[in-house]
Amino acid sequence: MTIKAGVVGAAGFAGIEVVRLLLNHPDFELVAATSDAQAGVPLASMYPAFAGATHLAFTANAEANLQDCQVVFTAVPHTAAIAVAPGLIKQGVTVIDLSADFRFDDPAVYEKWYKVEHTEKDLLSQRSFGQPELFREGLQAAAARYAAGEAVLVGCAGCYVTATSLAAAPAIRGGFANPEGVVVADAISGVTGAGKKCTETTHFCFANESLKAYGVASHRHSPEIGQILGLDEAHLVFTPHLAPLNRGLLSTVNIPLDPAKPTPTQLEITQAYASFYANDPCVTVLPTTQANTASVAGTNQAHVSAVVHTAANMVIATCAIDNLGKGAAGQAVQCANIVCGLEETAGLGLISPAV
Amino acid sequence: MTIKAGVVGAAGFAGIEVVRLLLNHPDFELVAATSDAQAGVPLASMYPAFAGATHLAFTANAEANLQDCQVVFTAVPHTAAIAVAPGLIKQGVTVIDLSADFRFDDPAVYEKWYKVEHTEKDLLSQRSFGQPELFREGLQAAAARYAAGEAVLVGCAGCYVTATSLAAAPAIRGGFANPEGVVVADAISGVTGAGKKCTETTHFCFANESLKAYGVASHRHSPEIGQILGLDEAHLVFTPHLAPLNRGLLSTVNIPLDPAKPTPTQLEITQAYASFYANDPCVTVLPTTQANTASVAGTNQAHVSAVVHTAANMVIATCAIDNLGKGAAGQAVQCANIVCGLEETAGLGLISPAV
Amino acid sequence: MTIKAGVVGAAGFAGIEVVRLLLNHPDFELVAATSDAQAGVPLASMYPAFAGATHLAFTANAEANLQDCQVVFTAVPHTAAIAVAPGLIKQGVTVIDLSADFRFDDPAVYEKWYKVEHTEKDLLSQRSFGQPELFREGLQAAAARYAAGEAVLVGCAGCYVTATSLAAAPAIRGGFANPEGVVVADAISGVTGAGKKCTETTHFCFANESLKAYGVASHRHSPEIGQILGLDEAHLVFTPHLAPLNRGLLSTVNIPLDPAKPTPTQLEITQAYASFYANDPCVTVLPTTQANTASVAGTNQAHVSAVVHTAANMVIATCAIDNLGKGAAGQAVQCANIVCGLEETAGLGLISPAV
Amino acid sequence: MTIKAGVVGAAGFAGIEVVRLLLNHPDFELVAATSDAQAGVPLASMYPAFAGATHLAFTANAEANLQDCQVVFTAVPHTAAIAVAPGLIKQGVTVIDLSADFRFDDPAVYEKWYKVEHTEKDLLSQRSFGQPELFREGLQAAAARYAAGEAVLVGCAGCYVTATSLAAAPAIRGGFANPEGVVVADAISGVTGAGKKCTETTHFCFANESLKAYGVASHRHSPEIGQILGLDEAHLVFTPHLAPLNRGLLSTVNIPLDPAKPTPTQLEITQAYASFYANDPCVTVLPTTQANTASVAGTNQAHVSAVVHTAANMVIATCAIDNLGKGAAGQAVQCANIVCGLEETAGLGLISPAV
Repeated sequence: MTIKAGVVGAAGFAGIEVVRLLLNHPDFELVAATSDAQAGVPLASMYPAFAGATHLAFTANAEANLQDCQVVFTAVPHTAAIAVAPGLIKQGVTVIDLSADFRFDDPAVYEKWYKVEHTEKDLLSQRSFGQPELFREGLQAAAARYAAGEAVLVGCAGCYVTATSLAAAPAIRGGFANPEGVVVADAISGVTGAGKKCTETTHFCFANESLKAYGVASHRHSPEIGQILGLDEAHLVFTPHLAPLNRGLLSTVNIPLDPAKPTPTQLEITQAYASFYANDPCVTVLPTTQANTASVAGTNQAHVSAVVHTAANMVIATCAIDNLGKGAAGQAVQCANIVCGLEETAGLGLISPAV
Repeated sequence: MTIKAGVVGAAGFAGIEVVRLLLNHPDFELVAATSDAQAGVPLASMYPAFAGATHLAFTANAEANLQDCQVVFTAVPHTAAIAVAPGLIKQGVTVIDLSADFRFDDPAVYEKWYKVEHTEKDLLSQRSFGQPELFREGLQAAAARYAAGEAVLVGCAGCYVTATSLAAAPAIRGGFANPEGVVVADAISGVTGAGKKCTETTHFCFANESLKAYGVASHRHSPEIGQILGLDEAHLVFTPHLAPLNRGLLSTVNIPLDPAKPTPTQLEITQAYASFYANDPCVTVLPTTQANTASVAGTNQAHVSAVVHTAANMVIATCAIDNLGKGAAGQAVQCANIVCGLEETAGLGLISPAV
Repeated sequence: MTIKAGVVGAAGFAGIEVVRLLLNHPDFELVAATSDAQAGVPLASMYPAFAGATHLAFTANAEANLQDCQVVFTAVPHTAAIAVAPGLIKQGVTVIDLSADFRFDDPAVYEKWYKVEHTEKDLLSQRSFGQPELFREGLQAAAARYAAGEAVLVGCAGCYVTATSLAAAPAIRGGFANPEGVVVADAISGVTGAGKKCTETTHFCFANESLKAYGVASHRHSPEIGQILGLDEAHLVFTPHLAPLNRGLLSTVNIPLDPAKPTPTQLEITQAYASFYANDPCVTVLPTTQANTASVAGTNQAHVSAVVHTAANMVIATCAIDNLGKGAAGQAVQCANIVCGLEETAGLGLISPAV
Repeated sequence: MTIKAGVVGAAGFAGIEVVRLLLNHPDFELVAATSDAQAGVPLASMYPAFAGATHLAFTANAEANLQDCQVVFTAVPHTAAIAVAPGLIKQGVTVIDLSADFRFDDPAVYEKWYKVEHTEKDLLSQRSFGQPELFREGLQAAAARYAAGEAVLVGCAGCYVTATSLAAAPAIRGGFANPEGVVVADAISGVTGAGKKCTETTHFCFANESLKAYGVASHRHSPEIGQILGLDEAHLVFTPHLAPLNRGLLSTVNIPLDPAKPTPTQLEITQAYASFYANDPCVTVLPTTQANTASVAGTNQAHVSAVVHTAANMVIATCAIDNLGKGAAGQAVQCANIVCGLEETAGLGLISPAV
C-alpha cells in the first residue's frame, strides 16, 4: 500500500533530491512538493532533469494539503522548520526534518549556534535522531509509535556530522579511543553543500580550481558531532573545507588510541569496523582501499576506511558520502523507511556510475 | 521471467555502465561480466561504486559460459567485436554490440575508416541498427525474430551519431531541410567518451580547464551520421570537441532550410519536433529552453531543442545526452528491451540528480 | 617614462584582469582602480591573489582623480560606458573601453541589441576599433593623434567576436570564402565570460559537469562579428555555448569556400593563415595541431588552426583564446600599447602554465 | 650579467614549470632543456603554451653541454638525481635538485622510504636544504660558496612538506606548541602533484568529481616534514588527499599548544605568525581570512592563516601554495636566486589571476 508523502522546501538542493528519490520509491507516493518562491512552476521547468519524469509543479506551502500526507519531509532552512513541523504533527503527519532545528538533545546548544530561541522544546524532547546506524533504537521506537497511529518527528543528522560520526564511532564506541584524547577531524565537501543560493562561495569562478578551509575553530557542526560521539568542545577539533566538485564529502578523522591498552593491530581495527557495521546495509567498510566520494555520488551509501598509525597510536578513519545523499536526502528517506516499517533500503538501491 | 544476460568487455567504460544498468533491471539477470585483463577481480575492487551492490567478479571471456545467456552485450573495442559476435549468434545468443563493427550498412565504409577487412558481411547484412527512435522498424523486426527463437544481432549507434541524428532527423525527415545544403554539426563531449585508456587526452591535467576540437575534417563518425541522415560527405561537416566533464555530449546541428518553401515559424518547428518524438519515451523536446547535458547525466534520456534562424533560413537544433547512457549503454539496453519484448524503458527510469 | 593609468570598474572580472596586467607592466603605472560598490576595500581583501603584490584599495569613481591619468581603461557594464567615456575624453584622458558601447560603426545596430539610445554618436564616429590584428590602421591613426597630444577613444572587440573573427578573417579577407555562403560559428566559453554576478548560470553546481548552448539564433555578438567580417545576418550563424572551466574560449568557424575557384590544398590554407598573421606577435597559427584553450589561459595569445574539408568545400578554422585575456583585458592593454607608442606586447609576455 | 641555466628532466610537470619561469627571468638565460624521451621535439610541440614564446627543443641529456651552465635544475624522478648531480658538481655546475634525493639530513631515512641505497652521502652532507623561509642560513652559506666560485648543491623541499612546514613552523619554533603533543596535518593536493604519468589516479574520469585520502599512515613525506619541524614519527600524523583541480595544495595543520603556558589569544598568534614571516617576500599571513589555493596558482607565494581553538588548546594553521610553484619549480628558482646572489623574488613576480 502506498504511503502519501510530501516535501516542504522542495526547490532547494536537499528538497529536490528527496523529490528525486520519492519519484522512484516503491512505497512512497509523492503528492506535494512545496516552494513558496516557485509556486506554480513545473519541477521540470526549474530542474530539466525531471523533464519526461513528472508533470508535478511546485505548490505554495499554504495550498499543499499536506494534512493528506502520512509523511512530510521538511527541507527548509535552519530555524525555519521550527515553525513548520508542529502544525504537521498536530494534524497527524509524521515529519522527517532535514534542518538543524531538531538535531540537538539540548536546545541551549542549538540556541547558541543558531542565534534563535528554540520555541518547540517539548517537541524536541520527543523527536528521534535521524542517523540510523548510530541511533537505530530511537528510530525503531518511533516506528512502533508510527505503527500505533502516532505522528512522529525525526530530526536528521547533517552531512558533516554523518560522515565524521560514521568514521569515528566504531573506534570510540568500541573502546579503542583515548577518553582524554582530542579527536581531530578535517572534512572536505563539494559545493552543493553550500546550497542553492548564489554567493561568492558558490560562484563557479571562485569555487573552481580552489581549495580552502572555512569556519575554522567555530563551525556549528562541531557540537552536533560532539553530541553523537560524546565529545565536548575540548576534545573535538573539526575543520570543514570546500573543494571543486558538486557532490561528495570526505571526512578524515584522527582518533587517539587508549594508551592504557596495547595498540590494536590493523586487522583488529578492520574487523572491529566491519563488525560494527555488519548489519547496516548503507555502510560498507573497505578493508584494503581508501574510500572515495565518486563511488557513492548519487547514492545513500557510506564507504568507511580505518588505518592504524602505530607510532602515534592513532586510528585514521575516513568516510566518504554524497553530502546530498547519505548526508541529507538519502538518509532522510532511510529514516522514513524505518519509521514506516518498510525495507530500510527501499528506493535507495541506486548504484553510482563507475565513472 | 528473468532473461539471463552477459556483458563482454565489462571492465571498459561502456561495459561497466551496462553492468550498472543490468544490476537494477527488473527483467534481465546479469550472470557474467567478462574481462580477460581483470579476470578474477571483483567488480567492486576495480570500481568501488559496486561495493555493497554485487559480489560478482570479472570472468575471462573463455570461461564465461555465455552460451547460457539469452542476451549478451558486447562492449569490446572497435574491430574486436567482429571476432566475438558470430560465435555467440551461432550458439543461439542474441548480441547487442556497442562497437562500430556492425553499424554500417556498407562494409566498405567501415573498412575505409577502421582500416580492417569486414569479415562478417553476411552477419552484417542481417543485423538491426540500434537506434530505436529513428530505426524502430528494424528493431521490431528483430523482436519478431527473437520471439520466434532466433538469435539476432543489433549494431548500436555511437554517441556522437545518436545526439547529432536525434537533433537533425525531425528537420530532415520532416522535409524542412534544403537537400542541397551542407549540414554543419559541432559536438562537444565529456572525457568518458575518450575511454578508460590513460593517455595525454584523458590525463586530468591536460583535459581539465581546456577546450579543443579534434578529428577535424576527418572524424570517423561522420559517415555513421551521414548514413542515418542520408547525407554524403559533401553535405555534412561534423567536428567533435572535448570539454572538461565526465559525462555529457551536446551536439549543435545547423540545418539549412529548403529555399523552395517558406521559412517555417518557430512554432511550426517546435511542433514538428514534438510530433516527431511524441511516442518516444526516451526523447524530450524542450520547447522554450536549451538542452543541457547535466540534466540527462546517468540516464537514457535525450533532450532536444530546435530554433529557427530566420535571416539565414536555418534550423539550429541541439541534443544533449549522456555519452555513456543514451550514447552507449542506455541505448543498448533500450534496444535489448525492444528486441526482447519488454517495456522499452525497463530499467532505464533513472532520473539525473537535479544538481 | 611611465604612463599613468586608471581602471574604472576595476572590481569586475575584466577590470581586475586589467589591474593584474598593469601591475606587471613596464610602462604603465596603475594609479587608480575604481569601484563604487567596493570603495575603500583593498584589492587584496576582495581578491587575495593581490596579497603581497599591492596595497592599492578600490576608489569611488567620483574620487579617483582620473584626470591625472593619461590612459583610463573602462570596464563597466554594457550601456554604462557611454556615461563615463565622454567626460574623460574632455579632460584629455585617452579611454580604452572594454564594453560594447563603442564597438559598432552603426549606432542603430547597438541600439537594436542593447535596447538603449546611443547618446554619443559623435564620439562613436571618432573612435578606433580595438582589435589590433584586423584593424591595425585605425589604431595606428589613433596612435598618431595620441602622440600629437589628443585624447582618443578605443572601443575594444568582445571575446566571442575576437576569437571568431581571428579564425575566419584569413579565409574571408584572403578571398577563399564563398561570398554567397553562410558562415557557421559555434563557440564555447568558460564561465568567467558570464561575469562576476552570481546567478543560476554562474552557480558552480549548475555550471559544473554541464554543457549547453544559449542565445541561439539571437546572440547579440553576431552583429559585431558580422561587422568585422562583412557578413550580414543572412550569412552568419553564431551560437555560443557554456562549458565548465574558468577561462578559455574556443570558436569553431565553418567557412564555405568559393565554388568558382579550385578548392585550396591544406598547405595553401595553412600558408595563407600563417602569412596573414606573420607580423602579429599575439596570434600563432598551429600548422599541424588543434588549438586548445589551456595553452593560452592567462595570456594575450590567440592560437589558430585551419583545416580544409575537401568534400564539402569548406575551411574549418578554430581559434582558442582566454576570454579575459585576448578576449578582454589583454587585448585592451595591447590596444593601449599601440596607441601609446609602446612595444605592442609590453606587459603581455606571460606564458601560460604548460599544465 | 646573465647566468646560463639548464633544466634536466624538463618534460615533466616540475621541469617544464622551471622552464616557464626561466624564460621570463631577468637574470637566468635558459640554454638547455633536456629530456631523453622527447629529444629533438620542440617545447612548443609538446606543450603548445610555449608556441610563440620559444623555439627551443628538448635535448638528450648526454648532448646538452650542461657543463657550460652555471646553474642546472634537476627535475628527474626520485632516485634518479643521485646519478645526475655529482657529475655536474664535479664540472663546476651548481645544482638545484627538485627530487627527494638530497632532502634528508640522514641518508638512512631516505633509504628506508625510497628503497634504494644513498650512494652520495658525502655530497648529501654538504648540500643546503632548499626551503628559504625556514633554512635561510644554509642557503646564504651556499651563496657565499657560490660567490667564491664553488659549485654547490641544493636539495629542495617537496610540496606537501613546504605547505605543512610553513603552516606549523611559527607555532612550533615560536614556542607555542606542546612538545608532547601530536601534530595532525591533513593536506589536499591538485592532480599535477601526481605527475605527468597517465595512471588511474591521473585519469580525468577517476580524478574528476572525487575526493580521497591516500598513503594513510605511511606517506613518505612525513619524515621530511618531521625533519623540518623536529617531530618524530610518534608526534606527527600526516595524511595527503587528492581533489579535482590542476594546481593547488592546502595543508591544514592542527598543533596542540603547550599546556604549561596560558592559551595565546588570537591576536598573539596572528602577530606571531606575521612577525615570523615579516622578512619573507614569498609568504603572506592572512590575518582575517582563510587561505585559498586559487589565489596562489601559478605563483611562488604561500598564503598562511592561523586560528586559535581555545577549548581544545590548539592552533589550526592552514597554508595554501601552488604545488608546482612554491611547492616545486618556484621554490627551486627562489633558492637559485639566493644562491646566485640575485633578488630573492627575481622572475617570481607573477600575480595569479583574480579569477
